[in-house]
Amino acid sequence: MDPSDSTLLRACRCEPVGHTPVWFMRQAGRSLPEYRELRGEASVLEAIARPELAAELTLQPVRRYGVDAAILFSDIVVPLVAIGLEIEIVPGRGPVLEHPFGSDRDLERLRPLEPLRDLAPVIETVRILRGELDVPLIGFAGAPFTLASYLVEGGPSRTFGATKALMHAEPKLWHALVDRLAGICLASLRAQVEAGVSAIQLFDSWAGALSPADYEEFALPASRAILEGIADLGVPRIHFGVGTGELLGLMAAAGTDVLGVDWRVPLRAAAKRAGRPMALQGNLDPAICLAPLDVVLEEAGRVLSEARSLPGHVFNLGHGVLPETDPGVLGAVVELVHEVTSTSCLP
Amino acid sequence: MDPSDSTLLRACRCEPVGHTPVWFMRQAGRSLPEYRELRGEASVLEAIARPELAAELTLQPVRRYGVDAAILFSDIVVPLVAIGLEIEIVPGRGPVLEHPFGSDRDLERLRPLEPLRDLAPVIETVRILRGELDVPLIGFAGAPFTLASYLVEGGPSRTFGATKALMHAEPKLWHALVDRLAGICLASLRAQVEAGVSAIQLFDSWAGALSPADYEEFALPASRAILEGIADLGVPRIHFGVGTGELLGLMAAAGTDVLGVDWRVPLRAAAKRAGRPMALQGNLDPAICLAPLDVVLEEAGRVLSEARSLPGHVFNLGHGVLPETDPGVLGAVVELVHEVTSTSCLP
Repeated sequence: MDPSDSTLLRACRCEPVGHTPVWFMRQAGRSLPEYRELRGEASVLEAIARPELAAELTLQPVRRYGVDAAILFSDIVVPLVAIGLEIEIVPGRGPVLEHPFGSDRDLERLRPLEPLRDLAPVIETVRILRGELDVPLIGFAGAPFTLASYLVEGGPSRTFGATKALMHAEPKLWHALVDRLAGICLASLRAQVEAGVSAIQLFDSWAGALSPADYEEFALPASRAILEGIADLGVPRIHFGVGTGELLGLMAAAGTDVLGVDWRVPLRAAAKRAGRPMALQGNLDPAICLAPLDVVLEEAGRVLSEARSLPGHVFNLGHGVLPETDPGVLGAVVELVHEVTSTSCLP
Repeated sequence: MDPSDSTLLRACRCEPVGHTPVWFMRQAGRSLPEYRELRGEASVLEAIARPELAAELTLQPVRRYGVDAAILFSDIVVPLVAIGLEIEIVPGRGPVLEHPFGSDRDLERLRPLEPLRDLAPVIETVRILRGELDVPLIGFAGAPFTLASYLVEGGPSRTFGATKALMHAEPKLWHALVDRLAGICLASLRAQVEAGVSAIQLFDSWAGALSPADYEEFALPASRAILEGIADLGVPRIHFGVGTGELLGLMAAAGTDVLGVDWRVPLRAAAKRAGRPMALQGNLDPAICLAPLDVVLEEAGRVLSEARSLPGHVFNLGHGVLPETDPGVLGAVVELVHEVTSTSCLP
């Protein structure tokens, strides 16, 4: 397979496609019984560190659902763990760091990433998958704001109070922090592409907690450094966060090929806010997938009909698959997307 | 004092004011040392049930900050507790219901509210405050979607998966549920106004989790029944939720005098989305209030300058005061708002 001619990459580039490509954020994960069985007692970070296991966990949803892309089984904190930060992913809670960042001295805890050494297992997983997959593999990184929020809060947050206080109170320290994180993420993404991923997604999951003015000043520059820093590699870049309705124009301007949209913003409205013609990814509400199948398919159909006016569309959920989702429902969504958008069915 | 000539009510009606009125959601609460001392070991629900105590907790922030309105010390679940639901407000978590709603039979747990009997302590608190306050008193209720989400999830939720599944899977049950809740909220608000509150706020705190299509179908009708059901009483109605950027037009159309806006949406953008000229309330990021004072005042100044183009503005945070907020900071914000907007200072 030549990934650059795949339906995913063609859609990202706004080229004609045989059908709309579809994949799901967190498609590899707890909603799949084969995932729970295979991961067993291993922690997420342990599973990521074992290339054969991580590759198999990446492949499971491709086999099960027939999606048009695989996404590397990994986590946004992996490069930070790789340079020595003591981060634990606590089940039901998320990444937790025992000693949160708060002063200039903490910057020293962020040494540059040497991907071939630090991310050796991840690179090996990509290499294994290159021989196994007949759909493109998506690599990813967390955006500096989202990563910094974990470091400053010491874990997940609802209000991001410590993060916002730090960025406003000590803007020099904040910018030094996100600049270092940008360097680490960029190195990680370049290494993933060089090892064989065909597209990348930058997850700024929590950027939607920021006002547009704060996003522009404190988050956008470091994200732009990453997105522009991989432009020369020629793989499509997807930029995504939750609750980012007011930020879509800025996130598009940061330099991306595809804008990920959560379920709150109708795709037509998102296209206007993007400010330039580009492909959008999204945006079925993951919570809707807990409803009966006919409801889910109706809602998926609504997303597809919204998407008809777009220059390019990658079907996805508006956030990650919820663990309690019935895999059968997601399989049916893939079938629907393929059927409804297949150009061979058009009159 | 004639509340109807107060700066708050004048601003809500888009009439000229001597200065922009300011109050803070959760101004009565844990950020105040005098609150923590006075409430002592009493639970929130116990404190609400004691009129003398609830009145004093309502008055504390008015004395401390010099805000232009008091908001009744109460909680959105109070009418539900009053009709016999076993809801507990768990510190650090929120309202928790042991047996969540899920079937037609649960509807029977929601009998109509008889406010004079069921809400006797709340009514008594309003009566006490009427003699004590020289600023208007704001009453409030939770909107049916937000209340229903607690009943269906059994507590706070990040995804609202059970709620969304129920509304889509059993729309008849859902509508019966929110209709009953609307009746309860309407009765509560009418009783508050008759006892003496001068304005009301409808809190649809979590409506922002819904797509516009879902909001319009599953949340708006019951909220409209409440807002239109108190229109004849002639008090300003404020309608607020978090993360509602995409819903502002619908929330305005539900029938409100003032639209509350969170910090994510710049006020000028919110004014456009409202779809008709009306007063807005907001929208300083509560997390910014944890930054040093000069930063907070600069950001408050930015909100005020955005607000200059509005027909009416009530200064507030974009969500409730965070418990770790320094009360001195909020006092300084009140002073700034009054000074900067005082018409006597204009050339």
